[in-house]
Order: sequence, then structure tokens, then C-alpha cells
Amino acid sequence: MKAATFQGKGNIQIREVPDPVIQNPDEAIVRVTYSCICGSDLWFYRGQSPLPEGSRIGHEFMGVVEKVGSDVKNLKVGDFVIAPFVISDGVCPECTVGETRFCRHGMFWGTNGYDAGQGEKVRMPFADHTVVVVPDADKLDEHMMRALLPLTDVLSTGHHAALDAHVTAGSVVAVIGDGAVGLCAVAASKRLGASRIFLVSTHEDRAALGKKFGATDIIAARGEDAIKQIKDATEDLGVDAALECVGTDGAWQIANGAVRIGGNIGFVGVPHGVADIPVAKLFNNNVGIKGSGASALHYIPQLLPDVLSGKLDVSDIFTKEVSLDNIAEGYKNMDERTEVKVIVRP
Amino acid sequence: MKAATFQGKGNIQIREVPDPVIQNPDEAIVRVTYSCICGSDLWFYRGQSPLPEGSRIGHEFMGVVEKVGSDVKNLKVGDFVIAPFVISDGVCPECTVGETRFCRHGMFWGTNGYDAGQGEKVRMPFADHTVVVVPDADKLDEHMMRALLPLTDVLSTGHHAALDAHVTAGSVVAVIGDGAVGLCAVAASKRLGASRIFLVSTHEDRAALGKKFGATDIIAARGEDAIKQIKDATEDLGVDAALECVGTDGAWQIANGAVRIGGNIGFVGVPHGVADIPVAKLFNNNVGIKGSGASALHYIPQLLPDVLSGKLDVSDIFTKEVSLDNIAEGYKNMDERTEVKVIVRP
Repeated sequence: MKAATFQGKGNIQIREVPDPVIQNPDEAIVRVTYSCICGSDLWFYRGQSPLPEGSRIGHEFMGVVEKVGSDVKNLKVGDFVIAPFVISDGVCPECTVGETRFCRHGMFWGTNGYDAGQGEKVRMPFADHTVVVVPDADKLDEHMMRALLPLTDVLSTGHHAALDAHVTAGSVVAVIGDGAVGLCAVAASKRLGASRIFLVSTHEDRAALGKKFGATDIIAARGEDAIKQIKDATEDLGVDAALECVGTDGAWQIANGAVRIGGNIGFVGVPHGVADIPVAKLFNNNVGIKGSGASALHYIPQLLPDVLSGKLDVSDIFTKEVSLDNIAEGYKNMDERTEVKVIVRP
Repeated sequence: MKAATFQGKGNIQIREVPDPVIQNPDEAIVRVTYSCICGSDLWFYRGQSPLPEGSRIGHEFMGVVEKVGSDVKNLKVGDFVIAPFVISDGVCPECTVGETRFCRHGMFWGTNGYDAGQGEKVRMPFADHTVVVVPDADKLDEHMMRALLPLTDVLSTGHHAALDAHVTAGSVVAVIGDGAVGLCAVAASKRLGASRIFLVSTHEDRAALGKKFGATDIIAARGEDAIKQIKDATEDLGVDAALECVGTDGAWQIANGAVRIGGNIGFVGVPHGVADIPVAKLFNNNVGIKGSGASALHYIPQLLPDVLSGKLDVSDIFTKEVSLDNIAEGYKNMDERTEVKVIVRP
């Protein structure tokens, strides 16, 4: 079978790899029908995070079960499944309280000898617990597949940002970041009932997507200017919830400056060079901060009904589709930010 | 009239001061019937925080309205009022969203030329907005007065800790700190429906009060031992909510160690030497942190019905009562921790 492999900075190549076989009775084999490229794949691509040359890559995918191990009870051959971006066992203490991202036996696709998602097939551990089955998926059309795919990561992550910032009915929200996660955070905030959603974006095309997803105000500015515009628009109060979807210190500064006293920052941008937070400073403004990678497995069942009903549709984040053979082009486009997010079809 | 004054480290003296007079039409004069000594008064007493010699002191009090200015509409002579520990105007943007602690025109009693609470009378600015009237207070007995008095600060603060840690029905909670605030945080958590409440306390008398207020488990240990006992008792998961009610780095370490992945730390101990928090570390465990001084004015109306009904009764935190003339003895007792909290009766 074919799979995408990382061959050094800026170099993604399709290679022939062995077909996966079930090695433990709790595993399944899934034929990937849709995968996509994540902003965090670009860290490796750009050489910002280490990855051994030759590694398989990709953690956002859906597909059809081709084979199940003898212990698997919840999946059957032919089931269509959505895979969260983290493997989890579903039964450890953290999984039990819904923090599947932090599963004690959890790992990322493509590590510990497991397959990654940008390829033709995947061997899936903990098969009974690590994916979500979509019933009657054979009746779903291509558009719905594109609406489901973001559940694997970016839509669940945007939802997580909104939950960690305690977005609820009537909240005034600022989303910092107009990448796929930020745009999904807009949609998730709208779904949770936010009454006003600022999107900080200096890219007209992404801002337009944000508006489509529910942003009421586009802040086409950076730094202090962005903060001032948000403050001015909220009678100098600031927002109830700031959703930090970038991970840089600059994005944090906007979040800190835009959130009101007593408000909350939910952050899902993996921190890169963000300054430490003095507790005494937090004490002086009662701002809550909470964030992490999302427990997508826990969130997918919450979000799935609204995706299937068409109420929650972020399929437009996919601005391009490539075949698996042409995946290198998708990486290049995303690296150059000419595309928001790229689907890869094996 | 008489009032307590700070005359240098370890030296509280009663002095004769001028009777207050209304200086602005939005003010009232309140005759203090109950006041008490706060742990934060001890910072001045111990020389840990600066206070000019001769300053009046005290910010927890209740009393009867003696006079109202011509603009005052919500208070009348004879009303019994509970004063939150911060003066607030009730109309600024922060007050409007319930963050009265952060009122733009807010200040502490005893500052900016205003009177402090440990004295016979107090001139009260923003009289229409800065206090809560208790109806039919003449029908309330001495016990109820002692149950109401903690609303001025410590009970509101314990409630704030629980809210900032998102304590809700079924939460598993750990309270770090067995002072008056920690004990009130236990009672507030119970009121919010916590299913299990650990109280970290190495003082048998305070632990007994904690049990009376709703603590289900006493952790008579410090540091790593306290964390281990809490983890062992929660199947190695940790608690949903850690309420940090001390303000030291040691208390923070217990809170950090005891809270589960995805849980929340609510902190109300004024930070003294607490280490800065690396954002990347937060990202690795999805722990939320939020805290500050409490917006008591906002909370008192929420809590008052349960206090008046007898459902919420922390009057036992008052382990001693002194007359205003003997206030120095009360400070000494609290400084030596031989009493939990001392009532001062003018």
C-alpha cells in the first residue's frame, strides 16, 4: 500500500509500505477514505518540531473498517469511522472523565509503531474505544463527508477552545487566529449561543469564511490595535471569552488584552514562546485560563448530530483537495498559506 | 466616636476620632453593630504589607443606617446593611457584569479618606449601590447575626473560590487552607452540590469545623504527602476542583498536584511568592486556573436566602468575641492562630 512519509524538512513523499495486519485481538484495520493535512503537520514539514526521516505522517482521517480482531465488539467490517487525532483506550481514569486526549495509554497516530493517517490503510489499536462509528454512512454524500472530516481534529479543537473559555448562551467572544482551528472556534462559539463573535483576521478570504461561520465582527488588525478595536466595540469592557487559536506570544497578548475582568481565555494553540503567567497578575483581574489539545473522541458524539443535521457545517475550511499521490502539493500550499486546509484522498 | 487604628507592627489601638458626617449627597452614615478581624488585616499587623501609622483598619462589618444623603434612594434610616469588603459604585462596566470587586471607582474601606469598619460608625460612599439591605433584620437573633457577618468577606470569598474552580453538583473538591476562608469554601462547595470534599488541615479543631461544614475527608498532611493521600483516595485521578485558600507556593503545589487532568484551580489566597505558571505546562494537563478577591456585593444576594433559611451557617468560624475596646486582644489571638476568627462589637 501507499503512505505519505516525512523525508526531511519540506519533503513529503509517497512510499510503498507493507499492508497493515492485525497484531493484537483488540485491533482493527481501517481503509482510509478521507484524510487531511493539519497545521501541526507543518511543524515537522518546516523543521520546527523533530520527526525522524522516513516517518509516516498525518492524524486526521476517516475510513471504512476492513477487518476486526477477535476481541473487537463495537466495530464490524464495513462500518464507517471517524478517528480522533489521538489514540485512546477509553477506559483509563482520564478517559472515564472525558479527557481522552490524556489517555494513560494514549499516543499519536504514526508513533509507537502505529500507522499514521495519510495513507491507504491504518492499523487501529483499542478499536472498540478509539473511534466513533457514523451509522448509515453509505447514505451520506460527498459534501457531508467534508463536513464530518473536521471532527477528527480542528472542529473538536475549536469546540474545546470555546468550552475551556466557558462560552455559553449570550457570551461575547473574540477568536484570535484565522486558521482552520480559529474558524472552527467561531462556528463552535456560534453553536454554543455566543451573541457576538469577533474574529481577529487580516486575511480577507479567511475573514469571509469566519463571517459565514458566525463571526459578527472582523478585527483586521494586530497587537494593540486589535485590542483597542475590541475594547472600543465593547464599551471598554472587553469580551467574556477570548479563544487563543495560534500559540504565539502575540496571540496571547491579544487574548489577554481583549478579555474582560472576570472573563476566560481558552487556548488551543500549542504554546510556542508564550511568556509565563504571574499568578499575582491573574489575581488582579480574575481572568481564567484553560487550554490543551482537545479530547476529540469525547467531543465527536456531542457535535456529530449537529453536523449530520447540517446545522454545524465547516466543510468550507477545505479549500483544496489532492490525491494521496499529490500530497506534497497540499503541504506546499498550506505551508505558503495559499490554502486554509487541504483534503487528501487516497 | 471610637475607632481601631494601626499604630505600627503588632500595635492596634482604639483612638477617639471625629464622628463621620455626610460629605456628598450619595453617602450614608452607618452605625456599626458587628465587625470582625480578617486574615488580611494581619498582613498590616505583622508588617507584611505597608499601612501608614494612624490608619483606621477593618473592612468586614454590618450595621444600621443612621443618616442618608439627599440623593440616596435605596436606603433609609434604620435599615440593616451588610457591607462587602470593597466599596463599589454599582454602575461601571465591571459592576454591571457582576465584577464589583473590580469597580472602576472601587476602593477599600479605610482608604481615600473613607472610614474603615472596626469602629463605631462609617461614612459610606455610593450608598445606593455598595451595601445589601437585610429586610426585617430586627426580627433576627444573635446567632443569625453571626451567620450573616461572614458574607462581608470570607463566605463570599469561599463561594468565589468554588465558582472560579467550577464546583457544581457532583464535583470532587479539595480545599487547601483551614483558615476562615478555607472553611467557608468547604461550606460553599457543599452548597453547590459537591459530592466529596477533601479539606487539607493539620489542626484538629479546624478540621472538626470543616467536617461540620461539609468536608467528607480530612487530609492531615502537607506537601507531597497531602497530594498522595488525595490521589490515593481518588483512584489516582485527583479532584475536579482544587480551592487554593492560602496564597503560598506550598498551597499552590498541593492544588496543582491534587487537581485532575481537565480539572480547575480556584484561588483566593492573595499570592505571596507563588511561582509563575508556564503556559506550556498548563497545556499539558488542561487544568484551568482562575482567582481573585471576591465580588462580595454580587454574591451576597445569591447566598443571603440560604443564610437566612439556616441552610448555610458558618457562624462557628467565630471562635471569640471582643468589645471594640479589647480589639488588640483579638488581633493577638488571630496572629497566634489560637482563634479562627474574632468578632468585634462596638
